[in-house]
Amino acid sequence: MKCDFHIHTVFSDGLVWPTIRVEEAVKDGLDAISLTEHIEYQPWGEDIPNPDRNRSFEIASELAKAFDLIVVHGVEITRDLPPGHANAIFITDANKLMLEDSIEVYREAKRQGGFIFWNHPNWISQRSDGKATLTDLHKYLIREGLLDGIEVVNDITYSDEALQIALDSNITIMGTSDIHNLVDWKFDIAEGGHRPITLVFAKERTAESIREALIDRRTVVWYENLLVGKESNLRPLIDASIRVVDVSYQGPSSVALVHLENNSDASFLLQNIGAYTFHTTADVVTLPPHETTVVQVKTGEQLSSFFLHFEVLNAITAPKRHLHFKLKVDVPQH
Amino acid sequence: MKCDFHIHTVFSDGLVWPTIRVEEAVKDGLDAISLTEHIEYQPWGEDIPNPDRNRSFEIASELAKAFDLIVVHGVEITRDLPPGHANAIFITDANKLMLEDSIEVYREAKRQGGFIFWNHPNWISQRSDGKATLTDLHKYLIREGLLDGIEVVNDITYSDEALQIALDSNITIMGTSDIHNLVDWKFDIAEGGHRPITLVFAKERTAESIREALIDRRTVVWYENLLVGKESNLRPLIDASIRVVDVSYQGPSSVALVHLENNSDASFLLQNIGAYTFHTTADVVTLPPHETTVVQVKTGEQLSSFFLHFEVLNAITAPKRHLHFKLKVDVPQH
Amino acid sequence: MKCDFHIHTVFSDGLVWPTIRVEEAVKDGLDAISLTEHIEYQPWGEDIPNPDRNRSFEIASELAKAFDLIVVHGVEITRDLPPGHANAIFITDANKLMLEDSIEVYREAKRQGGFIFWNHPNWISQRSDGKATLTDLHKYLIREGLLDGIEVVNDITYSDEALQIALDSNITIMGTSDIHNLVDWKFDIAEGGHRPITLVFAKERTAESIREALIDRRTVVWYENLLVGKESNLRPLIDASIRVVDVSYQGPSSVALVHLENNSDASFLLQNIGAYTFHTTADVVTLPPHETTVVQVKTGEQLSSFFLHFEVLNAITAPKRHLHFKLKVDVPQH
Amino acid sequence: MKCDFHIHTVFSDGLVWPTIRVEEAVKDGLDAISLTEHIEYQPWGEDIPNPDRNRSFEIASELAKAFDLIVVHGVEITRDLPPGHANAIFITDANKLMLEDSIEVYREAKRQGGFIFWNHPNWISQRSDGKATLTDLHKYLIREGLLDGIEVVNDITYSDEALQIALDSNITIMGTSDIHNLVDWKFDIAEGGHRPITLVFAKERTAESIREALIDRRTVVWYENLLVGKESNLRPLIDASIRVVDVSYQGPSSVALVHLENNSDASFLLQNIGAYTFHTTADVVTLPPHETTVVQVKTGEQLSSFFLHFEVLNAITAPKRHLHFKLKVDVPQH
Repeated sequence: MKCDFHIHTVFSDGLVWPTIRVEEAVKDGLDAISLTEHIEYQPWGEDIPNPDRNRSFEIASELAKAFDLIVVHGVEITRDLPPGHANAIFITDANKLMLEDSIEVYREAKRQGGFIFWNHPNWISQRSDGKATLTDLHKYLIREGLLDGIEVVNDITYSDEALQIALDSNITIMGTSDIHNLVDWKFDIAEGGHRPITLVFAKERTAESIREALIDRRTVVWYENLLVGKESNLRPLIDASIRVVDVSYQGPSSVALVHLENNSDASFLLQNIGAYTFHTTADVVTLPPHETTVVQVKTGEQLSSFFLHFEVLNAITAPKRHLHFKLKVDVPQH
Repeated sequence: MKCDFHIHTVFSDGLVWPTIRVEEAVKDGLDAISLTEHIEYQPWGEDIPNPDRNRSFEIASELAKAFDLIVVHGVEITRDLPPGHANAIFITDANKLMLEDSIEVYREAKRQGGFIFWNHPNWISQRSDGKATLTDLHKYLIREGLLDGIEVVNDITYSDEALQIALDSNITIMGTSDIHNLVDWKFDIAEGGHRPITLVFAKERTAESIREALIDRRTVVWYENLLVGKESNLRPLIDASIRVVDVSYQGPSSVALVHLENNSDASFLLQNIGAYTFHTTADVVTLPPHETTVVQVKTGEQLSSFFLHFEVLNAITAPKRHLHFKLKVDVPQH
Repeated sequence: MKCDFHIHTVFSDGLVWPTIRVEEAVKDGLDAISLTEHIEYQPWGEDIPNPDRNRSFEIASELAKAFDLIVVHGVEITRDLPPGHANAIFITDANKLMLEDSIEVYREAKRQGGFIFWNHPNWISQRSDGKATLTDLHKYLIREGLLDGIEVVNDITYSDEALQIALDSNITIMGTSDIHNLVDWKFDIAEGGHRPITLVFAKERTAESIREALIDRRTVVWYENLLVGKESNLRPLIDASIRVVDVSYQGPSSVALVHLENNSDASFLLQNIGAYTFHTTADVVTLPPHETTVVQVKTGEQLSSFFLHFEVLNAITAPKRHLHFKLKVDVPQH
Repeated sequence: MKCDFHIHTVFSDGLVWPTIRVEEAVKDGLDAISLTEHIEYQPWGEDIPNPDRNRSFEIASELAKAFDLIVVHGVEITRDLPPGHANAIFITDANKLMLEDSIEVYREAKRQGGFIFWNHPNWISQRSDGKATLTDLHKYLIREGLLDGIEVVNDITYSDEALQIALDSNITIMGTSDIHNLVDWKFDIAEGGHRPITLVFAKERTAESIREALIDRRTVVWYENLLVGKESNLRPLIDASIRVVDVSYQGPSSVALVHLENNSDASFLLQNIGAYTFHTTADVVTLPPHETTVVQVKTGEQLSSFFLHFEVLNAITAPKRHLHFKLKVDVPQH
């Protein structure tokens, strides 16, 4: 499930009507979005004075029915650091979150069934060194079960420090667009770009199932050409993305032609850390998206099966750590 | 100097007239080529019975005068392994190389001033495992000064084993197209591809200067997006290709915007192995060719200068070893 | 001056905040726009109840200062046919136009200095045959000087009948986008498309000068690859767009190589209606935008000067009539 | 049947081995080619002294077996004007055409079953005004049945005068590449270009059937975006290329949405010469290749069927004359 759970419209400080967000999401092939207006920050309030904080959700939900798009009710709780900004999604009534005390807002969101994640902990307006850092308040929130996730990717930023916090505290790894103007402009859609999203490994295509998966930390972030997630989530994704579709030895030689199909949108960047050298390239191999790439492996002698062993340079499991990935190659015997 | 020293025409088993090779080279922006016809293999001999092995060179040289292209006289000595095929370039009379004994051919080429390199030592028609291996005959040839280089890249193949031989024996690292039909077809020129070439670090733009640089082992091979060479040759190339063109801290933050210009045709694939994390990406950064890329570096506090430290994943100095590259960043003080 | 004087935002039934319209216009290279909200049609009124009809203009004007963009104050007077919809631009206070009687609204707009044009007279919701037709009320409005122009192009429609009305009644030929959602989506900007605009031949780059030119009927509409205007406006535009930049006879032959430069964004489609045949093409010649095209003219003997005579198939001066265009070619004598 | 019957290789003054011509033709999707070496002009004769003028055909035929390509035996008879150059194809022995007297060569070609056409009658090296002109000798040859066709298109030239000759003398309209270097370079294949070809309306996909169609004048030339042919040949081609695939009235309006499918490689340029105006464009409509284009027709009232009437600006039936084309549109009744 491709999800973007951090989006603004004219109902806070965004620049489009909620229906445009639905259309953008449909064009981008997303499964679920949440329009997360700032509760406390309403710069267009003079023109849009409506005190009902649920309007954005209502308008988008109405149009989304015409498409196969899930709209999750959400808001952005907009506070100084700590705790900073946070999104509460899967809530039921945004108006009840207009409370002064930060912790009380989190508690109310939780009472409504909310999933809460810390937004852009690396935001240089709040942390001038850009390094996400856990405060005592955050530790308290996590301990109390009030903070479920953290944005490792927000807009066009990525944070190794946020990733480390997610791993250390076992909270959900999130990536969002935080879009205010147009997705097409911000993320160069016309040139093949895409917005940052959270891949949520839900069991069914329902809001409830997405919520369950988020609570269970089953996410991978897809940002530019990076996949970021816990090894337990990344591994099955890579396993499902790359597969051997054909193998044969080149004539009587011991050079095996291994056809690797990449059925994902990512361009995989693989570093060979196995025992065999390759016949047509050095140790770094690129598998372009939705293509089959032939890797020629010098196995020394003709084998009936062997392993390829790669480090996936664009799949991050921890700061400066990439997924290691073993691929069994069975050679059909004629 | 961009050079391709392994090319065929209708005067051996190639499929075009020598002038097409000149036009291809000009279109590809090369500085020097050699038409290296097989001396001993003449499949079109029935139609082109001319016993003069210098014709191809003569015809190409004539047209090359109209362009700024150096044509080096060469041939391919075509023998079983060992010694296998070898190119002798910078010779003066190909006809004198029509000798039965392999070693005698090498000696005659040397007498003419030739530079001799072993072709496709990984050729599976001669080595079924595709692994270049030094035989006693090769060792003898090297010891005697009769073998100056080795193809690490030939056509669409690359060989870690050949690279190791070049390093161990201190012979010149070569990369060639070995083109028989059309360069545009073989190397997908229309889609932005390029033929494998040898970058020769000559002091002047003359044939003699190229020869001196080849003898002195001053080469880097440019194949697909790979640069392959001895560290002493690769480092100055990378230094000349990537430079800091602008630096500033983002407002009062300690996130430095480092503008890295890549003025080469290569798309550099850099892995961050330094002390600082980045603000907009994880540890792998791509610098597209002829573009300036901004890397946002979290230096912790505002510094007047600092170092970036990268492993250049597409620059190979030895099998499975990439160039390490340090870049000093000076922040202008206002 | 590239102008789009029919645009909507969330302040009537559009889907973006006014600032997005400014950014779109800047990206599209426009000189002037007008945000023409429906006075009487306010579907988002529940959320945006502000009774001030000048807000959209005020917000856009504020941002436009940062760019070199002229924002003209305007509104859409939204009535049944006749008179149908009309835009009044160059007004000073939209609120004063909230009047019941149609003719009174036109009179008030005029009192404010307004330029008024009939919108989409071919709109099939109001004219089921899509054929713009002048009613007695329109004739009255024109006679009284209350109706200055007519949209020959609106959104993705073009109307031969509206063009005929403009010519017969001598009112200004207008083309507008009537954009409600995003310009990029509607007009395929990423694939090289552009929105319909009115080229206004103003003497200076000021709002007042644009108004003077509109009143004086000095416009050409630029829609897809069509230019539509009165011959007196189209001819100087074509003269300025296509010029002979080089001429020479091919050796001793009487075939003249005429280099025609097209410095416009239009791809000119020329039909040869002159005396000479061409050496490399039949009678239809395309001049791609911002390119120089060589036309080889068989003049029979070498001449010191001659004329090319074309019908410009994509330049419309009246229904089914294209501009005829003569080009003098002087051959430099050596 | 897509045919190119004027091609050179190293066996006359071309620059590639015959097999490259086969590969080029296969890449270009041709059905038949002829390698038409100059009999009398052999600039590479010093290197390729083989007196057998059938070699080029033999070599190409051998490779063509592996593909679905017909290679027709041919030569270029290379004489001063008159008669100028001519190709004789469907001959059986080129060596027998090495005769001094021009007319005798034509007679011998005919004895072998040859089809003979006049090459580049507009060639400025032979006619400095570029205007193809019939001499008494040509008239004699045509009268005697020795000259069957004429190149209206050769390489990158087109000749209105040659077309007029073809029509006046009722000889076959031919278009050829006359390629000497590489088709990819000359005709910008990478940018979507194509070589000039002759479309031959043969009954079966055999050499004999092609010959029969050529003799019967059933050809259309396909050059850049032009189709050139007799009306009787062009009309069925256009009929087969453009068809109505869907029609419906837009709601209750009388604007019909006519979906026109263009299943050809040509981009048809249609000028509306019928009774109805269009709703989204003026009188010139483009139908891009292999796309369906919707034309919105204002029929005044809802009709059960009507006609569209176009002049096809890129289909030439005579100098400055384009095919007129009527299309019946039946509106499905629900």
